[in-house]
Amino acid sequence: MGFCMAKAEALMRAISCSLLVLTACLVALDSQTKYIVFTYARKATYKDLNSLPVLVYIDAVAAAYNFFQLGKCTIQPCRCRNKLEPLPSSDQRFLYLPWLCFLLDQVAVYIVFGATVGAMQGSMLAVTGSKVLQWMKLCNRYKRFCMQIGGALLCGYVASIAMVVLSFISAYNLFRLYSPTKIMQLKSK
Amino acid sequence: MGFCMAKAEALMRAISCSLLVLTACLVALDSQTKYIVFTYARKATYKDLNSLPVLVYIDAVAAAYNFFQLGKCTIQPCRCRNKLEPLPSSDQRFLYLPWLCFLLDQVAVYIVFGATVGAMQGSMLAVTGSKVLQWMKLCNRYKRFCMQIGGALLCGYVASIAMVVLSFISAYNLFRLYSPTKIMQLKSK
Repeated sequence: MGFCMAKAEALMRAISCSLLVLTACLVALDSQTKYIVFTYARKATYKDLNSLPVLVYIDAVAAAYNFFQLGKCTIQPCRCRNKLEPLPSSDQRFLYLPWLCFLLDQVAVYIVFGATVGAMQGSMLAVTGSKVLQWMKLCNRYKRFCMQIGGALLCGYVASIAMVVLSFISAYNLFRLYSPTKIMQLKSK
Repeated sequence: MGFCMAKAEALMRAISCSLLVLTACLVALDSQTKYIVFTYARKATYKDLNSLPVLVYIDAVAAAYNFFQLGKCTIQPCRCRNKLEPLPSSDQRFLYLPWLCFLLDQVAVYIVFGATVGAMQGSMLAVTGSKVLQWMKLCNRYKRFCMQIGGALLCGYVASIAMVVLSFISAYNLFRLYSPTKIMQLKSK
């Protein structure tokens, strides 16, 4: 069969890893200096909004996690079920690796998605401001800075989608080991 | 076997439905009036921050979705596999219901989680303010209002966790129908 689940997983991990690195770099390296009075310069960086540093750290850790998982895929192809090995036995102890993969992928996708949404919400307030709360807009002054953050968030969302697909794959790899008719029992061979 | 997957699903749906309704009500009914000068009153409502109305609408829709799914569980118990029926055949057409359930649950959990994180990020800015951006704090003036929003967000997070568990259950219900050794093929009986 031409389609291989392990190749799909490796591809998605490579995509999400590179997009997460790109997001972190775009946010962390973004800065713009504006002269408010002729002698007084004000520099906008990602540290102005406390949700942007959080996004940088989380995306860096998630990229490292995906890179590690990708390395595991290429070094030990049998672990990724490139050729699906038969189940060792109906012993539940052999399930620890799929369960670990599944839970780690789930935690990773929710944390990355949450950090991206949080950063977007903070940035939206910087774009729109809030008349009621007397919070002023910032993006009319720091246009290039805001455009770069917007691009970074777009990359972050695409990375989140790739990680959602990865969480589907790890759920598939785990739950297909269970019996379709008996509840939470392994498939008998 | 004492443990039944359908009962667990119905329980989680009831919990998440009631918590989502509670979150929406706590946010929507929250208001506090303060007299800034003796004659000038300023009322804080959930509409002051644009992420809070979004949270109310999304939680209401998600509660309705879970209620509908719960109704389906109680009316048609066989659909929830209270007693696991044998697979109809290895025909892929019979998979549409588990796939629909799985995808709807996934969409619901990400939207609810994202709305809760977004609302929390906006509220955090109202608690901490931002010196760099000259955004002032609000929660020192509207303490009771902010406490109630905080309680609502806590409920929202617990509801999100319940929906994550529901997404695990629907993934289990879907992927256990697939073969453990052949890629994306249904189990032969």
